Amino acid sequence: MRTSRKVKFTVAYDGTNYHGFQTQDNPGLPTIQDELVRAIQVVTGENVKITCAGRTDAGVHARGQVIDFLTGSRIPDDRFHLAMNSLLPGDIAVIYAETVAEEFHSRFSALGKHYRYTILNQRIPSPFHRRYSHQVYPPLDVKAMQDAAACFVGTHDFRAFCAAGSPVKDFVRTIWRCDLTQGEENLLILDVMGNGFLYNMIRIIVGTLVDVGKGKIPPDDIPQIIASMDRTLAGTTAPPQGLCLMKVWYEQLDFPFAVT
Amino acid sequence: MRTSRKVKFTVAYDGTNYHGFQTQDNPGLPTIQDELVRAIQVVTGENVKITCAGRTDAGVHARGQVIDFLTGSRIPDDRFHLAMNSLLPGDIAVIYAETVAEEFHSRFSALGKHYRYTILNQRIPSPFHRRYSHQVYPPLDVKAMQDAAACFVGTHDFRAFCAAGSPVKDFVRTIWRCDLTQGEENLLILDVMGNGFLYNMIRIIVGTLVDVGKGKIPPDDIPQIIASMDRTLAGTTAPPQGLCLMKVWYEQLDFPFAVT
Repeated sequence: MRTSRKVKFTVAYDGTNYHGFQTQDNPGLPTIQDELVRAIQVVTGENVKITCAGRTDAGVHARGQVIDFLTGSRIPDDRFHLAMNSLLPGDIAVIYAETVAEEFHSRFSALGKHYRYTILNQRIPSPFHRRYSHQVYPPLDVKAMQDAAACFVGTHDFRAFCAAGSPVKDFVRTIWRCDLTQGEENLLILDVMGNGFLYNMIRIIVGTLVDVGKGKIPPDDIPQIIASMDRTLAGTTAPPQGLCLMKVWYEQLDFPFAVT
Repeated sequence: MRTSRKVKFTVAYDGTNYHGFQTQDNPGLPTIQDELVRAIQVVTGENVKITCAGRTDAGVHARGQVIDFLTGSRIPDDRFHLAMNSLLPGDIAVIYAETVAEEFHSRFSALGKHYRYTILNQRIPSPFHRRYSHQVYPPLDVKAMQDAAACFVGTHDFRAFCAAGSPVKDFVRTIWRCDLTQGEENLLILDVMGNGFLYNMIRIIVGTLVDVGKGKIPPDDIPQIIASMDRTLAGTTAPPQGLCLMKVWYEQLDFPFAVT
């Protein structure tokens, strides 16, 4: 008889008030993981160990983070997520709950992820976008940034776009899409989809694209910056609040465009 | 020689952390007015008296609030708003500053206002919309709500839609537009434009429309609820965080539709 099952949650959160997803050594620093574990404990009576698809940093948001854990609780999936939302603070929500195969692992089973980074390109600060965007002034050259963004698509060694001190050994990742679009209200939206991302990779790409938009780096230099594998040639790391983990793909890549 | 001038600011703010626009008797309650007066004092050295177009309640937001004040300062308009934004907290911004005629009065010179109210019609809470919307579940009958909304257009005695204890004597107001539209992500957006609004009027209209959407009030009843002049026949007052003062019109009504 089966005594435990694996549950997968899709989770959204406003990361503004948290020190990232992962529980910190200092218990005084609130994290998304702490809040989830605490609410699961109230519902199940168990102190579960959770795994997540992407350990977002302090201030980074998610609309489609995925976590999984084993539980002996027999609460139905559709009641589980309602119970969670009645217990979680308003800036964290479980948007979907499902029982999955025991082999499922939110990080290792992932085929790819979609991250979005939002830039507010205006001089006047916005009370409504400030928690969810990186404000940049003066006006950026969007066309140059779009040309530069396209250079990231493909399979590359991205160590020039990885924060120093990362423990990974393989820096090769494939980016399927890297598209910059102009939104309303002076917003620039960068959508990046790929099979995996190095530590701070999106934020360093954004810092580099902002340098392109300011005319400091020509878009044509991007391929050689990637090829250099030299972190000092890329731009600075853009701040966390513009970043959002939109979606994690498992089994099937359902985004509406061809994988290059 | 002219020793003072009147300055008009267009102001945006996220009202979540404030006890409304107007300075409270209890100085421990932060208000938008307090923050503006404090910043103006740093820039001008003067303790100015400010007037606003609409005294928004605690938790209500603005994208186009208007204030005015007299000042002897000779700081140019375009430097004034930059100085303000460097001094104000991130949830308040001066988006435009201009010197206006001494006769200008942000409230009494106003020809009309545009308020927007946002409903999030879903069961799952949203970490991103919660500060700016009123969450309602179950699914609302949007068509019935649209029919009901249209009944508010015109010149009526709106005392059935005014909070008890309001000091006004004349309850007649003209609503030019009252349009409910479906936005993305289960959002319902109510845009109301009119020559003036009673205390809590929009929020009571929204509470009534939600009752229509739930099937508690037939849309055809709206005209007789208005005509009754009986506050108890209208719905409850919807919560503040869904409301935003979008725009105040002076001199010219530039919205792209006919005034009925």
